[in-house]
This record gives sequence, C-alpha cells and structure tokens, in this order.
Amino acid sequence: MENDIYTLLTQVRSTTPLVQNITNFVVMNNTANALLALGASPIMVHAEEEIEEVLNFCNSLVINIGTLSKPWAESMILAASYANKIGKPWILDPVGAGISSLRNETLKKLLTLKPTVIRGNASEIMALQNFGSTGKGVDSTEESSTALEAGKFLNKEYGSIICISGEIDYVISGGEVAEIANGSAMMTKVTGLGCTSTAIIAAFLGLGNNPFQEAIAGVAITSLAGELAASISKGPGSLQLNLYDTLYNLSKEQISENLKLKRNANPS
Amino acid sequence: MENDIYTLLTQVRSTTPLVQNITNFVVMNNTANALLALGASPIMVHAEEEIEEVLNFCNSLVINIGTLSKPWAESMILAASYANKIGKPWILDPVGAGISSLRNETLKKLLTLKPTVIRGNASEIMALQNFGSTGKGVDSTEESSTALEAGKFLNKEYGSIICISGEIDYVISGGEVAEIANGSAMMTKVTGLGCTSTAIIAAFLGLGNNPFQEAIAGVAITSLAGELAASISKGPGSLQLNLYDTLYNLSKEQISENLKLKRNANPS
Amino acid sequence: MENDIYTLLTQVRSTTPLVQNITNFVVMNNTANALLALGASPIMVHAEEEIEEVLNFCNSLVINIGTLSKPWAESMILAASYANKIGKPWILDPVGAGISSLRNETLKKLLTLKPTVIRGNASEIMALQNFGSTGKGVDSTEESSTALEAGKFLNKEYGSIICISGEIDYVISGGEVAEIANGSAMMTKVTGLGCTSTAIIAAFLGLGNNPFQEAIAGVAITSLAGELAASISKGPGSLQLNLYDTLYNLSKEQISENLKLKRNANPS
Repeated sequence: MENDIYTLLTQVRSTTPLVQNITNFVVMNNTANALLALGASPIMVHAEEEIEEVLNFCNSLVINIGTLSKPWAESMILAASYANKIGKPWILDPVGAGISSLRNETLKKLLTLKPTVIRGNASEIMALQNFGSTGKGVDSTEESSTALEAGKFLNKEYGSIICISGEIDYVISGGEVAEIANGSAMMTKVTGLGCTSTAIIAAFLGLGNNPFQEAIAGVAITSLAGELAASISKGPGSLQLNLYDTLYNLSKEQISENLKLKRNANPS
Repeated sequence: MENDIYTLLTQVRSTTPLVQNITNFVVMNNTANALLALGASPIMVHAEEEIEEVLNFCNSLVINIGTLSKPWAESMILAASYANKIGKPWILDPVGAGISSLRNETLKKLLTLKPTVIRGNASEIMALQNFGSTGKGVDSTEESSTALEAGKFLNKEYGSIICISGEIDYVISGGEVAEIANGSAMMTKVTGLGCTSTAIIAAFLGLGNNPFQEAIAGVAITSLAGELAASISKGPGSLQLNLYDTLYNLSKEQISENLKLKRNANPS
Repeated sequence: MENDIYTLLTQVRSTTPLVQNITNFVVMNNTANALLALGASPIMVHAEEEIEEVLNFCNSLVINIGTLSKPWAESMILAASYANKIGKPWILDPVGAGISSLRNETLKKLLTLKPTVIRGNASEIMALQNFGSTGKGVDSTEESSTALEAGKFLNKEYGSIICISGEIDYVISGGEVAEIANGSAMMTKVTGLGCTSTAIIAAFLGLGNNPFQEAIAGVAITSLAGELAASISKGPGSLQLNLYDTLYNLSKEQISENLKLKRNANPS
C-alpha cells in the first residue's frame, strides 16, 4: 500500500491536476501553496458567471464553507451541481457544521448533491448526521473515533467517501475503513491544515481513477508530511514552512519508512 | 506585574478562549495563526445571518475595518451590538481611520457602541478624535506619544480602554497609563502585526475578568514576542515565522527577563 | 544599468511609495509583505465609496483580477479611470486572461483605459491579444518568448509597457525590449510570485519618473531576489520566507554581481 501511495504521488507530480477551489478567505493562500508544493495546480474562482467555464478544464473541485455567506453558498451549489453534470470529482469541507442555521441549510443542499468525498473533524462529521453542533467553533472537541458511526451513516446515506481527521484519521467507503496513524498535535496550532488536507485529497481525486484510494492517499500524504515537518519544527510557524518543503521533497523512502496506514481496518 | 502577565498567559493556554473575528482579508491567516500559537482558538465568520448564533458561544470579538465595504460594515455593527447585548468584550481596530468618509462614518457608529478596547497606531487614534486623517495610508507617521491626549479623550468619551501601538505602546484606562517599551522596528515591515496585537488582546479579553489588565497583557505579549522573534530574524520573512514559534513557546523566564512594563506611568 | 536599478531601489527605500492594491484574496498577504520588505507601503481598499479618496494620496495602483467578481470589476474600472484622471501610474495583472467571458469582458474595459504597465505570463499576454485561452488555469503553459509578438502588439495598441514573466522575463516599450535572465523554477511552486512581481513593479512606478525603467527595475528586483532566495531554500516554504528577507536586505553588490539584464535586446 505504501507503494501505491507513492505511485499516486508521482502521478500527481507528473500530470499536475488542476484543482478549482471555492474556499475560505483564511486558508486560500495556504491551500494554494500546499497544492503547488505537492505538484498540483490551484485555481480559485468564485464568481457564478465563470464557474462553469473554469470547471470545464479543471480536474476536481473543493467546496469549503469556512467563511460562508449567501452569495458564496450559491456559487458553491452551482459549482457542485455542474461538477456532477460533467463528471468531475468534488470534495466538501463542512467547516463549522452545526454552528449556525446558515451553515446547516447550505450543507443540507450540498449533501443532496452527493459529494465524492467529505472531509471534516469529528465534531463536523457528527454534526452532518444530525445538524446540531457538537463542537466549539471550528476546532473539534471530540476524538475522531467518536465520529465513526456518523461517518458510516453519511457514507451509506449519500454514497460519499468520508474522511475524519484527528489523532487517527479514518477514510470510510462501503464496508471498508482505512486508518492513518500519522500526524502531530502541533498541526492543530496552524490554521487550516484540515482545509489543506481537503485540498490535497482533491489533487489526488483529480487523477480520476479510484476515489477511495485517492482519498486515502490525500489524507496519508498530508498527515505524514505534517508529522515529518513537525518533527523538525520548534513551533507552528516553522511547521507551516516545513510542511510545504516536505510536500515538495517527499520521497518513496520517507513514505515507506514512516507511513502508518491500515486498510480494511474496521474499528467498532 | 510580569508574574501577572504570565499568569494570564497560562490562563489563555489552559482555557483556550474562542475569539470571533470580523477582520480584513490581508491578515486573516496571520491573526488566526497568532491566536492558535498563543493558545486561543480563532473563528472568522462575517455573514449577518450567523453572527449572533456564533457569538453566543464565543468569548470575545474582534472588529477590524482594514478592507472595509458597506456590507461588512453592517455585519460589524450587528456583531458589536450583539456582543454588548450578551455582555461579551470586543475590541475595535480602526485601520486607516481618517482616510475616507466610509471609514469615518463606520467608525462613528462603532464608537457609539462603546468598544471594550480600541487599539490603533498614533495616526489612527488621533483620527478617531477629530476624524481627519493625520497619517499616510494605514501606517502611522507619528510617534505613539503624540496620540496620548487623543487616547485619554477617547477613553473619557466612550469608556473604552485605549491601546496606542508604537515604539512605546500605551494602554490607557481612567487615570492610569501603562507603558510597554518592547518591540522592534522590524515589526513594521511585516503586514498586520498591529492587527495581530488586536487579536491577541481579544484572546486575553476572552478571559473575562479585568479588561484593563487583559489589554495590557495582550499588548505586552505581542510586543515582547515580536522583539524576541526579531532578535533572531534576518528579515521580515523570518520574523513572521519566529513570532508564531515564540508565542507558542513563550516562557515565564522570557517574560520576567525581558518585559519592560510600567504601570501607573502617566506621561504628560 | 545595474547601478540604475540599485539607485531606484534606494529611492523606493527612502521615499516609501504608497501602493494601492485591488488584488486577489489569495495573494493579499504576500504582496503586502513583499511591498513592506522592499521598502514601500501597501494599502488595500476595494470599496467603490472610498477608492477615489484613497488614490488621492497614493503613488500608484495595482489592478489584479485573480479572484474576480462583478462588484470588484466595477471597483477596478473606477480605480483605473480615476488613476488616469489624476495622473497616477497603474499596472494591470490579467490573471487567468482568456479562461472566461467575465475575465475577457473586464479586461477589454481595463485595456481601453490604457494601463501604464501590463504584467502577465506568456499565456495571459497572448490571451489579451485575441481573448482566447492559451493556458491551463492561471499558470502559463508557454515559454515567455512565445508571447513576444503579442506583447509588442499590445504595446503598440494601448501604449502600455508590457512585462512577460517566465524563465526569461521581457519588458517591452516602443521599439525596445529588455531581457532579465534571473529567477528560479522553484518560484513557480509558490503561489502568487507573479502577483508579487506586479506589486513590486507598482512600487517602482510610484517613483513617478520613468515608467519603462521603473518597470524593468521591478521585474529585475523580483526575479533576482527570487533567484537568490531559491538558492538557499530547500523548498517553496523556505523560498517564500527567504524572498522577503532577501528583498529587505538586497545590496548593491548582490545586484551588480548577479543581475542578468540586457537592455535594447530585440529577440525576433
């Protein structure tokens, strides 16, 4: 499996998937830089007038509701609908799910469009099941495993691959659950590394072959690169910088020696 | 007093105040990262539809008019009004006060809502007194001491604690003026470190005990961390990174050895 | 000529031109920081209500359409028109030219306002000639020299100085073409370094003497600083940081020893 991850990484580096992002103001710069460091290419347009034209030549789409407003919600729904129409994979990042009616109503509409992948923290994934807030703001207050049942529910209900970020990351599809035990607590002290994981998953989805395997690769690469970067960082400022450098240089050996991935795990 | 500052810092680190920010596009990423590095938790929502729901579970509010527009001005006024209604402390950062009618009219409305704290550079604080521009753009052209009288006026007029940033920082409340003599000239070469100070003050205000002491702590921690970071930086790129790392690791010893704080100072 | 470049740099450092930016959300923080590190001063306002008041005290204007929307397009046209009226130089960065009707229609209007300078990659410069997309997203798929004829056409048609970024950078005005052979391939792995070049050109334009020479200086300083920064960077995270530090410290010797500038080049 480690070899598969590296193979997918080399495919991203050689084909440069173009990822369209409707994302939040806080992380735009970071996720664009993460996509470039990985080997993909970012584009960030949000005007309804040009979304369809742009999606036509992109490989995948990110919808991230972090700094939501009504006009942006409309662009998101338009973009997701059009991605479905032309068969492009897309990923939903339900930032702050459950904290407001605006978010819940927007997320309900986006869920009916059946995202290829949904990635969130435990609080967000649980909120998507019942649309009540379980967290405090946009950071999770729950262990990722707490959200496994909600993740399985969402996977069955909408057919979306579900990624739950946390100390252990889970990727759920059908009866299968993959576990990634990489990462670092310091990653929670850099804003938007969850959003970065979402963008990197989108880059792999842009390969357009096997979304479950691509989602696993995206989660694995982000958490592994974050762990390696944190190990040489004395604080979150260094970590953000080292994350880009690590993504840019990540080697087959670093992956095979450090990746802690279990496929067909099925924690109860 | 140095011990008080460190005590407040440990309280922020242990209670993780949640800070809602309606701020400008230029600094959103930076101030979110500064809040995380400090030990607080940022949230940044601006849609009128969700501001009240979000403020209900936050500990404090930042209003920063850096990239102002009419719709955002309305969200700011709504948020500040609601913060008053539910008794949450809030801080106003009057970026570019005096440079346009839009800014002046918006600031007049925000001032009538009596911010818990106002933090600006000398040009901005003086502009709030008479609503004429004294600066050149968003950077101050004046020594911070020049604005002391304006700061005292604003404190009397609106009851707000006034923080004036500069080579010497002043924090004014009632008859008292605290002086912080930390910082570095290189800090003016990184965008938004004034906005960062505002966000960090908001994190301390989120403790909800003594706003004057909390404002002093916010200013002191920012200027001290900036000074320590600058001392190991060869330029403003390094300084931004080292500021996050320094905030993350700031120790009792670093504070007691380096903080230059005078309470009950009262420069004429 | 290297001495001229350094002379202009010292003029920027001593006079601190104030650069108004209507730019995209992805790069706002970066270009503000690049301007500060260079020695200029950034301001970023986009509300139609205050653009004229602000431009009155600025030295130059950046119009960058990266995250375009209709309301922002109106602000851009207003700002460019007013800059012309009061005789302030302005630069157009036609991000993603050719990829959508919204962009093409906005760019057509902006071109009729005859920008002082236009800076883009080869795909964008060629798209401005015929308004069909030649690229893939916002990154160029073409060698910069491919766009030389388009650049000369645009220079004749609109009187704008044309800067084409790439492995070789070109600056075109009248019969003259200047070539800058500095830079690094790693610069394409940091988001918005083209936008950064645009902002830095604007800082030099703010000197208000010789726009062709100032445009050359802006391109040269950006590519040279990027090359020097890349030479000590192990990846794009380090490069972004080192670029700011290098701009801040750039010396006469570094310029005279490393700058690869040819004036009066005229490649066919």
